[in-house]
Amino acid sequence: MDIATILGVVSAFSLVLLSIMMGSGLGAFFNAPSLMIVVGGTLGATMINYPLGDVIGVIRVGMKVIFAKSSSVPELIASFVDFATRARREGILALESSISEVNDEFLRKGLQLTVDGLEPVAIEEILQTEIDYVEARHKLGADIFQTLGTFAPALGMIGTLIGLVQMLQSMDDPSSIGPSMAVALLTTFYGSMMANILFLPMAGKLRKRSQEEVMVKEVVLNGILSIAKGDNPRILEQKLHSFVPPNQRKSAFS
Amino acid sequence: MDIATILGVVSAFSLVLLSIMMGSGLGAFFNAPSLMIVVGGTLGATMINYPLGDVIGVIRVGMKVIFAKSSSVPELIASFVDFATRARREGILALESSISEVNDEFLRKGLQLTVDGLEPVAIEEILQTEIDYVEARHKLGADIFQTLGTFAPALGMIGTLIGLVQMLQSMDDPSSIGPSMAVALLTTFYGSMMANILFLPMAGKLRKRSQEEVMVKEVVLNGILSIAKGDNPRILEQKLHSFVPPNQRKSAFS
Amino acid sequence: MDIATILGVVSAFSLVLLSIMMGSGLGAFFNAPSLMIVVGGTLGATMINYPLGDVIGVIRVGMKVIFAKSSSVPELIASFVDFATRARREGILALESSISEVNDEFLRKGLQLTVDGLEPVAIEEILQTEIDYVEARHKLGADIFQTLGTFAPALGMIGTLIGLVQMLQSMDDPSSIGPSMAVALLTTFYGSMMANILFLPMAGKLRKRSQEEVMVKEVVLNGILSIAKGDNPRILEQKLHSFVPPNQRKSAFS
Amino acid sequence: MDIATILGVVSAFSLVLLSIMMGSGLGAFFNAPSLMIVVGGTLGATMINYPLGDVIGVIRVGMKVIFAKSSSVPELIASFVDFATRARREGILALESSISEVNDEFLRKGLQLTVDGLEPVAIEEILQTEIDYVEARHKLGADIFQTLGTFAPALGMIGTLIGLVQMLQSMDDPSSIGPSMAVALLTTFYGSMMANILFLPMAGKLRKRSQEEVMVKEVVLNGILSIAKGDNPRILEQKLHSFVPPNQRKSAFS
Amino acid sequence: MDIATILGVVSAFSLVLLSIMMGSGLGAFFNAPSLMIVVGGTLGATMINYPLGDVIGVIRVGMKVIFAKSSSVPELIASFVDFATRARREGILALESSISEVNDEFLRKGLQLTVDGLEPVAIEEILQTEIDYVEARHKLGADIFQTLGTFAPALGMIGTLIGLVQMLQSMDDPSSIGPSMAVALLTTFYGSMMANILFLPMAGKLRKRSQEEVMVKEVVLNGILSIAKGDNPRILEQKLHSFVPPNQRKSAFS
Repeated sequence: MDIATILGVVSAFSLVLLSIMMGSGLGAFFNAPSLMIVVGGTLGATMINYPLGDVIGVIRVGMKVIFAKSSSVPELIASFVDFATRARREGILALESSISEVNDEFLRKGLQLTVDGLEPVAIEEILQTEIDYVEARHKLGADIFQTLGTFAPALGMIGTLIGLVQMLQSMDDPSSIGPSMAVALLTTFYGSMMANILFLPMAGKLRKRSQEEVMVKEVVLNGILSIAKGDNPRILEQKLHSFVPPNQRKSAFS
Repeated sequence: MDIATILGVVSAFSLVLLSIMMGSGLGAFFNAPSLMIVVGGTLGATMINYPLGDVIGVIRVGMKVIFAKSSSVPELIASFVDFATRARREGILALESSISEVNDEFLRKGLQLTVDGLEPVAIEEILQTEIDYVEARHKLGADIFQTLGTFAPALGMIGTLIGLVQMLQSMDDPSSIGPSMAVALLTTFYGSMMANILFLPMAGKLRKRSQEEVMVKEVVLNGILSIAKGDNPRILEQKLHSFVPPNQRKSAFS
Repeated sequence: MDIATILGVVSAFSLVLLSIMMGSGLGAFFNAPSLMIVVGGTLGATMINYPLGDVIGVIRVGMKVIFAKSSSVPELIASFVDFATRARREGILALESSISEVNDEFLRKGLQLTVDGLEPVAIEEILQTEIDYVEARHKLGADIFQTLGTFAPALGMIGTLIGLVQMLQSMDDPSSIGPSMAVALLTTFYGSMMANILFLPMAGKLRKRSQEEVMVKEVVLNGILSIAKGDNPRILEQKLHSFVPPNQRKSAFS
Repeated sequence: MDIATILGVVSAFSLVLLSIMMGSGLGAFFNAPSLMIVVGGTLGATMINYPLGDVIGVIRVGMKVIFAKSSSVPELIASFVDFATRARREGILALESSISEVNDEFLRKGLQLTVDGLEPVAIEEILQTEIDYVEARHKLGADIFQTLGTFAPALGMIGTLIGLVQMLQSMDDPSSIGPSMAVALLTTFYGSMMANILFLPMAGKLRKRSQEEVMVKEVVLNGILSIAKGDNPRILEQKLHSFVPPNQRKSAFS
Repeated sequence: MDIATILGVVSAFSLVLLSIMMGSGLGAFFNAPSLMIVVGGTLGATMINYPLGDVIGVIRVGMKVIFAKSSSVPELIASFVDFATRARREGILALESSISEVNDEFLRKGLQLTVDGLEPVAIEEILQTEIDYVEARHKLGADIFQTLGTFAPALGMIGTLIGLVQMLQSMDDPSSIGPSMAVALLTTFYGSMMANILFLPMAGKLRKRSQEEVMVKEVVLNGILSIAKGDNPRILEQKLHSFVPPNQRKSAFS
């Protein structure tokens, strides 16, 4: 559960609403046709930009990524030291029995390839391709949110232009100019809000999460290769410790 | 057939039209000289930017890419497992008879090079160059749409500047200021519309489609190399499965 | 001769002039001091940005690139198949007599190095460095136009700011406000025009032409290397065909 | 202690305050709801964009980086010449006694791996991974400040839009238009100030500091490898001198 | 001496001053507090962004780069052909006597390493690191000017916002609105001027000069390596000619 995302969305939106209410009622800031053009137009542009399946599928992926529990890298390193120790003492086939206990699919695949006796180069190729394409799929999710965050202000400006043209063409009643222009500005307001306190930071969070997940997979890849090459468990630990900041490095050997 | 593109264009444009009609007639938003300067100027700038043949040819390519049926990667992997199994059992020349049944030109070329007995390194060089230049040609299509989407708002702003200068120079009749300025803003409106709900998302879709097609070609390249190197079909399947998400991996061996 | 560039410049400018004349006379859009500050200031900023020799020399290069006839890659491939066939049949020295008939300097240098018996690795190093620096020199041309297209609107805005400050400081006569502001906007108009229907698309065309020329040189490099390595002419043709789209591939062997 | 950062913040802010006080009182520039929406909204958007722990932790890292004393590279090179000389004379194990005297953790780890007799390739792999991930952690700090600097003006504009809409909807009293609009502009002012004289230059400083620290680590990596390969101390000095400008190169051998 | 820079600065500034004087006196465009906030604020933000020593030191480096005489690459190639010929005829140690006559420090270092008999791979490593860090130091200079050019318009906008807020809060006297707004716009004018006809083109010139210097160093690196490998002087000349355009290639052998 990603508490920061929810906290951020709730606090940013309530602050905006609060600051609106300090100056006027909320009613002045709600306008159905304005909302329709910004929300609908942004979705339309995004649907031209991405295949339908991706737009739907990625929102699901996005949710999964946000709510996913991130793996503990120090624990992962500890398991690898364990695997390496057993592989050294009892031979690499001794790891076969552990594979079924492993939850993470990527780690399981890596161990299986090692036990199957593939060359380290071939293992690296397979796992690296998998990491690259996991990264590409995550990037797609972030890109779709980024696209939403790019089109929302653009559609907001289109809505404001429509409102301005309509206002300018019927300026008979001076007292209606102010309110008409206020309504015209609402679409820009909606577009800015959607982009800056929803879509763009969400795209950023997805990118961040993807980096973390890819880093965990890089640790797994390096651990697997180290075992496949028959590295000393101390060396394996040294290699994997390079991925984490010094204060998270707990050695199994001291 | 790419349903999302058509759905997106239709829905975005109808929403804009609908929201215009809720406030005024559509007539106020149609102005021939404004349309002329934005559409004509944008095409003119794009024709300076790209060779004439490319502009015409790429629109055709764009249509083909959008309406193209995307290949099924899982099916492709299944065929490769099949090819690899036969190559192992009956020798690589046994694949010769299958070549004529293959529809995809790239796959056919790869199989032919393999049957001809070229070194994997040479096969990789030839096919990778082909992938690079297919990518470059696709990129050109997306770039032209991106360029259209960059010049359209610029020409819109030029049109608005012309309208503003003309309005400011003859401000004798105050009642004409509003309508003159409304007309001046129309070019900015046209430019924004064309860029944001046509050209820019189309460029995005072309980029996305190109990525998909290149990914399919990467799968073919890796499959061909795996066969040329005489990989075990299980290993080949493992390698190719790395390109697809876990839920699309159906093994032929379990 | 690049017909699209000329067609684009002429059509874009005439459309702008036409649309101006539909609303007012052209006279209102001509203002010598405004033109002076935008054109002169843009050139000044570009001269700070680039050495004088480059600014002058590159415009010449730019013209040459635009008016240059692009090479026919399919014809080039046919010559290479020819070279390779003769080199195979009569030995690599048989190509010596052909060198003097070759017009293209890059191809001539490549053939000479091959006939001189240099190692393929050394040939690749020399020719690749040459391609890299041809690319760098072309890039400089495109960059200078891009820089002109960046400073022109900036200088336009500076001119408008000057006009606005002067107008705001002497607002005694309300009837002069409109025309003064119209004049102030002219520099922004000039800057936008110069950038969007001259400098920026010209920069794009130079980039495009450079890509084409570099691609031709890559074909030459690959053909030379293939001959130097003694490749079978069919293989050489396969390698070079990877650079062109399928519909331009005409084999000499079928 | 980084005197420039403090000097810059203090001088930039005092100049702004001074220039405000030359025209009016400071009071007109303080508005609690405006401050609330910009500061709170920016923090909210950043919290959506980054995990909570990172936002808190990175500010701490940022402070540490800014106040950290930068290492003296010439002194570091001198120590390496010393290490190399002793390793050559007394054997690599002679360095073991020096390890405990070394303060820098990265250098200590490198020396330990060398004394342990690892292959240079393995040492490089471990230390390079560590450098890459130190760089990634530093980059995260700079990215968070950059994100703050991107959202602050956006939230400023949202606040101004709210103020404008409220002002336009109640324009009964013309004398209140000016002050209302002044208040509406304050959020844009706050957003610009926070971004341009706090967040964005801080992000730049963090990037700069990170580059320096990574460069020091690159010197250490190259020194360690040079010792592990048994390079002549003069060669080692030549290699490490390449990292510093000529005027900072003091040879131990001349 | 770089005549274009001085010519550009002088001509751009005089054109702006001239066009101001054609419309009003220069006095209206001078305002001490406005100048103070833009110049001081920009320097402040840059001092937060970069260490104090770098800001001061780099301006000195910038001057040196701009006034530096660029090396003649064709002359450099001729010397290398000379070195290579002597090295071939009299052995590599014959170059020792020439080292003291060489002015360029980088070339001298390269020759010394060659005469010392280092492996080409080690020479390349040392010289390439030096090129990389020369490039990094040059880039820092360009980056600081780019940063100045980014913060100047931002501070200009902050100054204008301050002026607008103060004007809007005291609109009692309508006749003072124009002049107040004129003053408010001055900071934007200053920021635009400083950025577009000083800082940004200076940054561009520094980048250009750095490229040239790095290219000269790449020629030296390739020449040194060619001598160290014992290349035939004709081959060495061919290799180095790849760096210059065809019309600057004068062979010593024809």
